[in-house]
Amino acid sequence: MTKNLNIAVIGYGYWGPNLVRNFAEIPGVEVKIVSDFKSELLAKVQARYPKIKVTTNCQDIFQDPDIDAVVIATPVSSHFDLALAALKAGKHVMVEKPMTVTSEQSIRLIDEAEKRNLVLMVDHTFVYTGAVRKMHDLIASKRLGDIYYYDSVRVNLGLFQHDVNVICDLAVHDLSIMNYVLPAQPCAVSATGVSHVPGEPENIAYLTLFFETNLIAHIHVNWLAPVKVRRTLIGGSQKMIVFDDLEPSEKLKIYDKGITVNGNTESLYQMLIGYRTGDMWSPKLDMTEALRTEGLHFIDCITKGDRPITDGQAGLQVVKILEAATQSMKNQGQLVELDKVGVVA
Amino acid sequence: MTKNLNIAVIGYGYWGPNLVRNFAEIPGVEVKIVSDFKSELLAKVQARYPKIKVTTNCQDIFQDPDIDAVVIATPVSSHFDLALAALKAGKHVMVEKPMTVTSEQSIRLIDEAEKRNLVLMVDHTFVYTGAVRKMHDLIASKRLGDIYYYDSVRVNLGLFQHDVNVICDLAVHDLSIMNYVLPAQPCAVSATGVSHVPGEPENIAYLTLFFETNLIAHIHVNWLAPVKVRRTLIGGSQKMIVFDDLEPSEKLKIYDKGITVNGNTESLYQMLIGYRTGDMWSPKLDMTEALRTEGLHFIDCITKGDRPITDGQAGLQVVKILEAATQSMKNQGQLVELDKVGVVA
Amino acid sequence: MTKNLNIAVIGYGYWGPNLVRNFAEIPGVEVKIVSDFKSELLAKVQARYPKIKVTTNCQDIFQDPDIDAVVIATPVSSHFDLALAALKAGKHVMVEKPMTVTSEQSIRLIDEAEKRNLVLMVDHTFVYTGAVRKMHDLIASKRLGDIYYYDSVRVNLGLFQHDVNVICDLAVHDLSIMNYVLPAQPCAVSATGVSHVPGEPENIAYLTLFFETNLIAHIHVNWLAPVKVRRTLIGGSQKMIVFDDLEPSEKLKIYDKGITVNGNTESLYQMLIGYRTGDMWSPKLDMTEALRTEGLHFIDCITKGDRPITDGQAGLQVVKILEAATQSMKNQGQLVELDKVGVVA
Amino acid sequence: MTKNLNIAVIGYGYWGPNLVRNFAEIPGVEVKIVSDFKSELLAKVQARYPKIKVTTNCQDIFQDPDIDAVVIATPVSSHFDLALAALKAGKHVMVEKPMTVTSEQSIRLIDEAEKRNLVLMVDHTFVYTGAVRKMHDLIASKRLGDIYYYDSVRVNLGLFQHDVNVICDLAVHDLSIMNYVLPAQPCAVSATGVSHVPGEPENIAYLTLFFETNLIAHIHVNWLAPVKVRRTLIGGSQKMIVFDDLEPSEKLKIYDKGITVNGNTESLYQMLIGYRTGDMWSPKLDMTEALRTEGLHFIDCITKGDRPITDGQAGLQVVKILEAATQSMKNQGQLVELDKVGVVA
Repeated sequence: MTKNLNIAVIGYGYWGPNLVRNFAEIPGVEVKIVSDFKSELLAKVQARYPKIKVTTNCQDIFQDPDIDAVVIATPVSSHFDLALAALKAGKHVMVEKPMTVTSEQSIRLIDEAEKRNLVLMVDHTFVYTGAVRKMHDLIASKRLGDIYYYDSVRVNLGLFQHDVNVICDLAVHDLSIMNYVLPAQPCAVSATGVSHVPGEPENIAYLTLFFETNLIAHIHVNWLAPVKVRRTLIGGSQKMIVFDDLEPSEKLKIYDKGITVNGNTESLYQMLIGYRTGDMWSPKLDMTEALRTEGLHFIDCITKGDRPITDGQAGLQVVKILEAATQSMKNQGQLVELDKVGVVA
Repeated sequence: MTKNLNIAVIGYGYWGPNLVRNFAEIPGVEVKIVSDFKSELLAKVQARYPKIKVTTNCQDIFQDPDIDAVVIATPVSSHFDLALAALKAGKHVMVEKPMTVTSEQSIRLIDEAEKRNLVLMVDHTFVYTGAVRKMHDLIASKRLGDIYYYDSVRVNLGLFQHDVNVICDLAVHDLSIMNYVLPAQPCAVSATGVSHVPGEPENIAYLTLFFETNLIAHIHVNWLAPVKVRRTLIGGSQKMIVFDDLEPSEKLKIYDKGITVNGNTESLYQMLIGYRTGDMWSPKLDMTEALRTEGLHFIDCITKGDRPITDGQAGLQVVKILEAATQSMKNQGQLVELDKVGVVA
Repeated sequence: MTKNLNIAVIGYGYWGPNLVRNFAEIPGVEVKIVSDFKSELLAKVQARYPKIKVTTNCQDIFQDPDIDAVVIATPVSSHFDLALAALKAGKHVMVEKPMTVTSEQSIRLIDEAEKRNLVLMVDHTFVYTGAVRKMHDLIASKRLGDIYYYDSVRVNLGLFQHDVNVICDLAVHDLSIMNYVLPAQPCAVSATGVSHVPGEPENIAYLTLFFETNLIAHIHVNWLAPVKVRRTLIGGSQKMIVFDDLEPSEKLKIYDKGITVNGNTESLYQMLIGYRTGDMWSPKLDMTEALRTEGLHFIDCITKGDRPITDGQAGLQVVKILEAATQSMKNQGQLVELDKVGVVA
Repeated sequence: MTKNLNIAVIGYGYWGPNLVRNFAEIPGVEVKIVSDFKSELLAKVQARYPKIKVTTNCQDIFQDPDIDAVVIATPVSSHFDLALAALKAGKHVMVEKPMTVTSEQSIRLIDEAEKRNLVLMVDHTFVYTGAVRKMHDLIASKRLGDIYYYDSVRVNLGLFQHDVNVICDLAVHDLSIMNYVLPAQPCAVSATGVSHVPGEPENIAYLTLFFETNLIAHIHVNWLAPVKVRRTLIGGSQKMIVFDDLEPSEKLKIYDKGITVNGNTESLYQMLIGYRTGDMWSPKLDMTEALRTEGLHFIDCITKGDRPITDGQAGLQVVKILEAATQSMKNQGQLVELDKVGVVA
């Protein structure tokens, strides 16, 4: 790379400091400016990174011709406006998850980026962890056989959000992982959930995702659990995975377990089902910080004109499921088909 | 007790031997006869208990005036006929779970038992474990505060059933526990699930149960999981429980954790939510074999004319949920209200 | 096998029933007679096995020419006399661990068996488990590289013994496993321990075992621990093992971890040590009951005239270490060399 | 406090940054200067704390009359010289563990500090954690009854040290905790251990500590273990503790378990031992960073002229045990009495 890529970061709240730190450490990249409407947060930027400029007005970023790319880490309600403005100003964009509030907004951003030949990437951080990439590779290489189910639990005590429900806050992680590792995309959702604080969004929810085949996925999220759980089971016809993200090492365990089915479907009586149990194997994982891998990928896509793994379409897929799940949850589990989500009559 | 109670056991397959062993050890009770249509199983009875009579014809039991009570441990499809015959013959009845295939059948048995003033008990074994009784007492004494949710996972590899789906096989345990410990009964169900073996019943399923309040319950059952999990979370406003039945000791952990909500509902903006974390406590549990406690309770109810904890109504409640869940599952999560289950137009 | 082998079992206390049950299930073997000085225990034998004869006088066994082999499961203080009498009567012998109280007695039994060409086997049950055999094979095939250490913890609450200390009760298991799986035998012992009940033997103890090389072994045993632990670490230059016998599955985990050492010993300064971390692998284990495998092996050795894996020498090795450890413990860790144990001046 | 206390920190390697960060955040305290002989480490100080002065010459610190206290975080071989120079310059001193190489040096520092009425504190960091303070309080308040044993395991892969053995590197933590929480000090040591890298210090070691009573302590340390373990068991006559420092929450579990002894010592035969099992309880712990608590305590002692919890005597006690253990280890477990350690003939 002969010329430095200049990055701007909008939003220095919870996630912004991680973005700034990681981009600042990538060779050939310079974080030029950080914007936030809270000046006390900008003071922290200056104390830590004296060379980075700060502003409370993000127009300063859009109007600066030196800025190549904008990274947006603000509350979800502002994602669409900020990303659209950045794209219109000719900047590449990386935006926090969920990409937008509505799938219509996501489609609008995808169109804008395509029209202008700009990179639009959504920060589905987990996709860039060693564990998730390993799961993706195992499934893609058919090591698990046919995939039967994807089951994930993400529960803990807090943090309650006021503006989004627990699906948008927590299940968004599982959906981004699921869409990346599974060989197919879901086609319908049934979700249930309730709120335990009057006037606040749902704090516990259960999502079932249906696919064209008999693959099924389920996600359980809860802000009000006494223990922290981050556990995903993936069942395949040949092997099965347990992914426990709280394990300091051995996050991924691959079990050579399953059933064998004998008998023909015309037989008068049932199948003969046998159980197969073999070795368990826990592969060594790449422990590079996901955000570094992701940052390098964003820069690489900009430089080479490539499409990111977590591109606008990946962001849209997740937003569609969030919309559908929220709608289904309002109707106590009523099935919502994903191709009918966000469609304007 | 001056006179011995004479017991007959029908069915000596998987569970029958445990029933015979436990009743045989209760003072004042005699297991007089065991019936099964497989003579090789009856040979086992004779080798182990030379004094117990055996028969392949259960009419021998119904017609024997010396038999006071009949314990039925046969496949679920035969429960109704056998229990009805026993009641009509004037015998007290304890029947395996689920009590019957349909809720209509359960109602019929309840009526018959009531009319004849006989004890009708369903073998919801878990209700008689030390852990479940402790949970019941903690909730009944308001130690947990208001109950927010009940979440249970019961998964492992096998045993696949051919005649019933995974809900009827595994969730039946959770439903019997849930109905016993919770302060209210569910009013509607949304369930999802699929089968991964052509022509066979569903082997993975998810049930959400709704209540009149914002209490919510969820049960995840799976015959095709690489690891065995038996874990229930119960969230209350004051305390929360984790019940892990695979823990050799410390099966029950009670967490002094929760949220505190400040602010009034008229405020323009949201609640202020605080997080409370205190001690964890794992009480010593009564480790008596559940089936012994249950057997003693059955005998006690017969002797004193009491109604069992797991009476016909408890059996009916579970059957209604199983019916509703199976129906909802066929319709991909469609809500089924429990008071409309089993009602003949 | 054309002719049945006839077995006698002496002692029907804690372990005897397991021995009788396993030998009774081996084809071609008949358990003819059981002896115990408590007649209430013999009544249990008769209830369970009507065809087995019982006696309170073990001379009945030694004098019966039909008995081919005697299995001794009595308190350790009686092992020597009973085993010697059985050998002198021309019977093959399998004796509980520890084989005898003193190493002199063990040597005497070995000599007697050799002179008479009889099988003398010690019941080091763990050696016949799938987990221990797998560890043996991994080490024997050099998969672990050079062995650096063997570290075992075997602690729980109870059962306190009155006649033997915790080393003889619990460490005997670890020593039998260690001697079987390690490529070398220890040459010296340093042990420490105390008693917390006046007048009773030591209930907590720590043993270090030294070898000719820099291999080191350590065993921690305790009757007064709040939690049950059964965990062994084996460190090798190529791989390391964690054996947790309380894990229902995945008892054995093999870690591809270790250090790499660079630099030459003549350098002015120190070695450069690198750390290597790879996959973890948990092999499927043979889950056959160890006592069945062991019983089959005993019968096989008798039939073919082979020497058992856990022969008299294996028994003697363990007894020598127990003697040395007990002596060292009395002297607060003073080193006791094993070749000086049990030597009569 | 009307006047700021001025602190100097010597050594900015592994631990120094934590010391600087914590002291910098204490109100009324100013970290004025940091010294290290590596200028690249001093550059890091300047980048992070532009107001702190740096020097490669620690005489600048001793000669500066504005410096009230010196914190020493250098390799152990330099502790004595630096601490003595600081004390002679009239500065209060906090020094890393182990306090010095020899107990003679520790005694010399204690004398110097006493003579000059200066605070001498050793950085036994674990003593200031919520978990260790809770254990101390439970034992001091007799909640555990009589203490029977203290058993600690601290093993992992790496980091190998070249200048000190694994006892001085890892057991130093356990010894500082043990000396703080136990009601008595040990009187003798038996230690064993070996090195697996030629020319390098011992990388695996086992220490037994004897006391005047039948209390016993044992510490297992290992740089070459496939898994990380940080677990301490403390057995008392009334209750027992399991302290697992790797648990994210529930680090401390208190078990209401033990034995009951019946019978009199004159009886011909043995004691009757019963087993008592009650609830388990895991108290909420103060999660304040230990180094902050410790820093506040150091400042408090300086201001009020108090003696620190981890004073020179506490440092000396640990150094004496390290000396004794290292000597015992060279002689394969030979008992070394602590009152004979470091005594010059």
